[in-house]
Amino acid sequence: MTQRQPPTRSANGLAQPLGHASLRRANLALVLRHLREEGSCSRADIADSTGLHRATVSNLMAELLERGLVREVGTERAGAIGRPRRAVALDGSHVGALGMEINVDYIAVHGTDLSGRVLVERRISFDAMGQGPDRSLAELGRVTRRVIGDMKRAGAPPGGIVVGVPGLVDSGRGVVALAPNLGWHGLPLADRLREELGGLQVPVTVDNDANLAALAEYTSGVAAGTADMVSLTGEVGVGGGIIVGGRLLRGADGFSGEVGHLPVDPGGDRCGCGRVGCWETKVGFAALVRSATPDQAYGLDAGQGAVPTPDPEERVREIARGLAEGDERMVGAVAEVGRWLGLGGSILVNLFNPRVIVIGGYFARLAERLIPAAQAELEQLVIAGPAARCRFMASNLGFGAASRGAASMVVDHIMDDPTAIGSAPIAPDIAGQRI
Amino acid sequence: MTQRQPPTRSANGLAQPLGHASLRRANLALVLRHLREEGSCSRADIADSTGLHRATVSNLMAELLERGLVREVGTERAGAIGRPRRAVALDGSHVGALGMEINVDYIAVHGTDLSGRVLVERRISFDAMGQGPDRSLAELGRVTRRVIGDMKRAGAPPGGIVVGVPGLVDSGRGVVALAPNLGWHGLPLADRLREELGGLQVPVTVDNDANLAALAEYTSGVAAGTADMVSLTGEVGVGGGIIVGGRLLRGADGFSGEVGHLPVDPGGDRCGCGRVGCWETKVGFAALVRSATPDQAYGLDAGQGAVPTPDPEERVREIARGLAEGDERMVGAVAEVGRWLGLGGSILVNLFNPRVIVIGGYFARLAERLIPAAQAELEQLVIAGPAARCRFMASNLGFGAASRGAASMVVDHIMDDPTAIGSAPIAPDIAGQRI
Repeated sequence: MTQRQPPTRSANGLAQPLGHASLRRANLALVLRHLREEGSCSRADIADSTGLHRATVSNLMAELLERGLVREVGTERAGAIGRPRRAVALDGSHVGALGMEINVDYIAVHGTDLSGRVLVERRISFDAMGQGPDRSLAELGRVTRRVIGDMKRAGAPPGGIVVGVPGLVDSGRGVVALAPNLGWHGLPLADRLREELGGLQVPVTVDNDANLAALAEYTSGVAAGTADMVSLTGEVGVGGGIIVGGRLLRGADGFSGEVGHLPVDPGGDRCGCGRVGCWETKVGFAALVRSATPDQAYGLDAGQGAVPTPDPEERVREIARGLAEGDERMVGAVAEVGRWLGLGGSILVNLFNPRVIVIGGYFARLAERLIPAAQAELEQLVIAGPAARCRFMASNLGFGAASRGAASMVVDHIMDDPTAIGSAPIAPDIAGQRI
Repeated sequence: MTQRQPPTRSANGLAQPLGHASLRRANLALVLRHLREEGSCSRADIADSTGLHRATVSNLMAELLERGLVREVGTERAGAIGRPRRAVALDGSHVGALGMEINVDYIAVHGTDLSGRVLVERRISFDAMGQGPDRSLAELGRVTRRVIGDMKRAGAPPGGIVVGVPGLVDSGRGVVALAPNLGWHGLPLADRLREELGGLQVPVTVDNDANLAALAEYTSGVAAGTADMVSLTGEVGVGGGIIVGGRLLRGADGFSGEVGHLPVDPGGDRCGCGRVGCWETKVGFAALVRSATPDQAYGLDAGQGAVPTPDPEERVREIARGLAEGDERMVGAVAEVGRWLGLGGSILVNLFNPRVIVIGGYFARLAERLIPAAQAELEQLVIAGPAARCRFMASNLGFGAASRGAASMVVDHIMDDPTAIGSAPIAPDIAGQRI
């Protein structure tokens, strides 16, 4: 049997040759994936199942042991006969995955080890809009350094960081092309955060917050595994993450899913993006606060985005209380948001034909009132009518969906390329811990 | 070496066991695909490349020869040494693929053999809306029977038929759930067409016209191979076919891409679907005719759809002449359609982030004037601005894009399951030709 080259295919579907380094990376990933799916195995089992030479497997395993990604787990015996063989298993406990999200009024953190065990979970109120990009980056850097310290102390320094941002992200270059609600344009976030981290050379990737939330919903949310679904963030801005046939729809540049700027009301209000009548001027959190609690409203500073209230959590609680008490203004405001949610949802159903629309952020907190209004409007407007069978569901991942998706993306990155954490050593003192 | 089972994966990504019949089908398909990509090969080459036993390859080849899907093509010699070996090649010439489209005012036909050689190409003016479903089906049956006869005479009776319809199609059951512009609701088109064909038991599949046109654009249009693109049909109705990462986006039920009913003008005209201000009331062919040549306008019969003019081809020519002569009304009407095309296009770019929007049907005929207006509007409205780099391109496939895509889908069906054409023998007299 010859050494098997894991199949790689280019866009046109033709097999491509692999260089030596990338072949080794692919084989390391092949072994890790096998262990992830099968649990503990002997080296011989891995060789048989993957088609790799036994000598190759032993060699790969030595590297994975050294990187702290697998561990010896004693012996196993194949049936009644045969000599016992040493088994190995995935060991996620020494390497961490750090997911972050920066949004209009908070920074969220979700740090796990590679097995998914949560090490750090935090949401810090922060006025990113008011502070501007420089001070936001300094704060993001400060929070990140502190969390890396916490994860080191927990024995799993992060092997990578993914940061979610509510805007258009050029993920390949780590640049935020445009985040209207943060007032960011062409911000090289990955480079700037690396600078803020100084000696802590952890690989940093940037992605759209709604895409990351959709990944979290698809892997661990209320509609996990639904192959065709849309996930909506419910913040001041409204972002969409689209899962199509079990895969995240990214589009040609990663700019897909900009649902917040669907033009739904030509005679409506001006949006943070400068246009008029965008969907998020109807269903975004600032729009709800404006109509439900006008004395506490967000300011809207055209062209620069929304100015947040001091404490959005308190606003949500206040509105929830108002609904419980039957406050007419609040009941009316939420019903109106629900109808607009249904109208925009019907556009998404006509275009994507999802089975579920998961609503996150503040939408989820007010779902009991929002969903009936939204569902009724949706069913009236969808061109396929009841045949489309799409329903709204409230996320149970809270405001941390994007950071959770970000952490799971780090895990995937490391599984796909276990050499990345070594080629960019995290820091001298961390490297000393033999990750 | 053991017989290789072609990998099949369920939605959750886990490998699934294959039964004997489906394993044979998959192996037949594996051999056909290999021949399609590599040209002529010896049986030994195929065994080496596919990992199948030589005896298995010989056995599969006997079946493919019997079905007329491959042919012996003489001998080839591997290098200077070694005895000459008989080679086989794909033989598409004895099996046909019939693509059809029925639309508001025409039936289109595209018949090829399996190698893609065009045998029949036809567009028949027909008032499907005015005739109602029963007479439309009778006419579709009459045209189909005649074309099958033509393809038999050309030596390639169709091994399958795919029919494109402008509406929501439950492809699995062959039912048109809703085609507003034809006035069809819940029509079991596949079954009804099979009845019309009587003894001619050709497998019939039904699909959405815009999806089929998108497949044709992706495989052989002006933007062929563009992994992220949208294709728009330009008829009385406007349908969208969405290619995402090189694959057709279908959604949970195949109801995706209903772009014609994007709500773009809450104060606008009533649409054939019963709603108000849908995109196709602004850019559909009836809308253009209404403003460009009001004396020749389509009637719009709310709830039943559009009543077509006697000769839409003539209307397009008349408008093109008017544009060339600088007729102010026509120039203004086309520019207005162009602006709305750009507005709707910007929604699609914000959601799908395609690199190209291919415009077909009448859009393509008037593209020289439509595209500049549409492109300018698009660039002004797209949230990512110039970074999204999406451009409109005119299709060069004419009104036959959907039927061409339908024929290529038949070819794919046969390549994926070469046993289907045998298990549903086409007709006694055709079977006699040993297809």
